[in-house]
Amino acid sequence: MQPKKAFGWAARDSSGVLSPFTFSGSATGEKDVTFKVLYCGICHSDLHLLQNEFENEWPSSYPLLPGHEIVGVVTQVGSKVEKFQVGDKVGVGCVVGSCHTCDNCANNLENYCNKMILTYGAKYYDVTTTYGGYSDIMVANEQFMVSIPDNLPLDGGAPLLCAGITVYSPCLVCMSLISTSPNKKKEAIEHLGAYSFLVSRNQDEMQAAMGTLDGIIDTVSASHPLLPLIGLLKTNGKLVLVGVPEKPLELPVFPLLMGRKIVAGSCTGGMKETQEVINFAAKHNIITDIEVIPIDYMNIAMERLSRADVKYRNTLKSTSLI
Amino acid sequence: MQPKKAFGWAARDSSGVLSPFTFSGSATGEKDVTFKVLYCGICHSDLHLLQNEFENEWPSSYPLLPGHEIVGVVTQVGSKVEKFQVGDKVGVGCVVGSCHTCDNCANNLENYCNKMILTYGAKYYDVTTTYGGYSDIMVANEQFMVSIPDNLPLDGGAPLLCAGITVYSPCLVCMSLISTSPNKKKEAIEHLGAYSFLVSRNQDEMQAAMGTLDGIIDTVSASHPLLPLIGLLKTNGKLVLVGVPEKPLELPVFPLLMGRKIVAGSCTGGMKETQEVINFAAKHNIITDIEVIPIDYMNIAMERLSRADVKYRNTLKSTSLI
Repeated sequence: MQPKKAFGWAARDSSGVLSPFTFSGSATGEKDVTFKVLYCGICHSDLHLLQNEFENEWPSSYPLLPGHEIVGVVTQVGSKVEKFQVGDKVGVGCVVGSCHTCDNCANNLENYCNKMILTYGAKYYDVTTTYGGYSDIMVANEQFMVSIPDNLPLDGGAPLLCAGITVYSPCLVCMSLISTSPNKKKEAIEHLGAYSFLVSRNQDEMQAAMGTLDGIIDTVSASHPLLPLIGLLKTNGKLVLVGVPEKPLELPVFPLLMGRKIVAGSCTGGMKETQEVINFAAKHNIITDIEVIPIDYMNIAMERLSRADVKYRNTLKSTSLI
Repeated sequence: MQPKKAFGWAARDSSGVLSPFTFSGSATGEKDVTFKVLYCGICHSDLHLLQNEFENEWPSSYPLLPGHEIVGVVTQVGSKVEKFQVGDKVGVGCVVGSCHTCDNCANNLENYCNKMILTYGAKYYDVTTTYGGYSDIMVANEQFMVSIPDNLPLDGGAPLLCAGITVYSPCLVCMSLISTSPNKKKEAIEHLGAYSFLVSRNQDEMQAAMGTLDGIIDTVSASHPLLPLIGLLKTNGKLVLVGVPEKPLELPVFPLLMGRKIVAGSCTGGMKETQEVINFAAKHNIITDIEVIPIDYMNIAMERLSRADVKYRNTLKSTSLI
């Protein structure tokens, strides 16, 4: 099969401003699946990478075409593809390749493979550049794709491929919801089923909750103090960081020691657990709360994301591209 | 029983300079044991507290009489003491009291009790001030004392009560030894039984060891970068901090997430495991490498400690006080 002509929106430099971009999609190999992109979630990591904020750890190369919460419909399959056929609904998350030989790959943790290939901004097996889901068409190896059950809405399902698996992987529990925004409280309790809701900027509420939590999943991608969160934990409590602030955080050692507490990192999930979270969400009718936006709203969406003005995730509707 | 006249060396202010100090020891209660202090280890925490370096977390009050690796011989026991009798060799570590009712106390983790009473510089059940082992005599409740087996040397055994239990509690494994000082290498391999020895300032050695360790116990009490240590860990690897630097450390989030790695704190140990480490050391003839010093060398010892010029711990010989 031949390379496809593809179209999306990419940034040309670290201003991060997105504009239309035409490129050659990958040739479809024997195990590759081509699919029409229908929706793509917008993640804070997209914003970090657009603006090259991980310059030291993961330098961005331009043109950069983001998007790693991608769902669509299969249009073509390679001759040895076993899992999918034309017309299937599929998803691609953060990872599109790995070494297949290391311990992490053997344990279904391709996301921790040293040679893991990110869905965009990376070199695909040292040859082509990977482009993400802010585009109309995508090609991926079937091993790095998940099946989307019929009853899972495609728009609200897309964010499960990064945001969903990222919190599913470290822990699958109902817990207090902690937010800087008091205006999310009513919805969190009544609609999302949170047991309780803590406003992190409310000193009294935070003080009353000290030493009460077994675990916290910290999804904040901006710099923030860990001290109050560590204070909320019980002895042996665990704070799992899944967001990536652009600078190192301050780790207060004293309170960590005094409560034998734990700060851990977790980064998306392997393919096996990514399929699991999709199936789990479909079975229990869980979808993410999203705001569907067209592609030409993208730069405004990024600006809103940077000032936490999104409830709870923007999902790009890609049909406007086609 | 009446209060004892006791004599030790204390600091009067945050200069941390130690000088002779006379005080009234506690009255001996029914469950209390009085013992003559024979040796006391010198811990980096003593230096931190002498100079009020934990001003925000744990402010020092003066006069401050440090010492929490204390061994001696029982001279008097209260009427309801069951574990000890006159002439027994005993030890006291970091903690001399707790609430006895919380979950941590019930789980033999008195060291994590919210009402835990430190061996020095604390209020003893809201009444008297606690003074540590840089003194000639000490009184403690038998619950917070350990028995020292006959074959464990008292001088080399003393540091087990903080330094020993602190590394025993998070993990009891043989591992690579990591040091800033290449001149400790020969001794670490030949005498201490380290599997390997890494010089943390040697970039080539550190690079070669990246991603190879399951766990690291970090005993450094000064500010230091965590990034190279996190880099040494495998996926799921754990860095356990047991030293307390005076300022928050920089926590690089990206490498923590990318390897699903863990940074945890651990603070000495409960009484049950403290007795365990003493018994373990006695059974396997493990003693700490120490340099025995007299009390009037104390201020020089502190100055040497602050510039890492101690191999591996100073133990105060208290007989010079008597």
